[in-house]
Amino acid sequence: MSIASTGATPYYAVIFTSIRTSGDGGYGDMADAMLEAAAKQPGFLGVESAREGLGITVSYWESLEAIAAWKRDAEHLTAQKLGREQWYECYKTRICKVERDYDFSRL
Amino acid sequence: MSIASTGATPYYAVIFTSIRTSGDGGYGDMADAMLEAAAKQPGFLGVESAREGLGITVSYWESLEAIAAWKRDAEHLTAQKLGREQWYECYKTRICKVERDYDFSRL
Repeated sequence: MSIASTGATPYYAVIFTSIRTSGDGGYGDMADAMLEAAAKQPGFLGVESAREGLGITVSYWESLEAIAAWKRDAEHLTAQKLGREQWYECYKTRICKVERDYDFSRL
Repeated sequence: MSIASTGATPYYAVIFTSIRTSGDGGYGDMADAMLEAAAKQPGFLGVESAREGLGITVSYWESLEAIAAWKRDAEHLTAQKLGREQWYECYKTRICKVERDYDFSRL
């Protein structure tokens, strides 16, 4: 995974921080399917994800409306339900407006 | 590391996404020192971090002024310089206003 190319500010970020239950129980396949489905949503700008005990997934969006539509997506609602029932000990979701950004590359 | 307890919205988040160069070169010690130093800053609310190829560190703050003060911190300026010179292939920093949050716990 690479750093998301998100274009000019302002745009929006959803920071999803989670701690998993043990075992997979279909989690890996669903996580892959959700990344693929999110990328097809209108207003999707990119995603960054890492897990090291704590998991952090940040998805980037053009607008709050795009985030709301993704939250209501039927396949995503199923994943959210399974997440609460099976996959997550706990999670926190934060909806943010990205006001400024800057980057560095040695290339 | 656990999910940060960040209190009521609004507050601010700095999403720092990075890809490391190979080798440590003092990085691990400096990363630990920076987490410790950030936690002592006025207005610091918490931090979440994971690396899995891509590294994502999200720090949370009471205000943009608190973020600006941390950016100017002398020890932090040294770390930022070494980061560009040695530790990072590339990084992106995003300054965000957290507008809403919600969480789930099975406990």
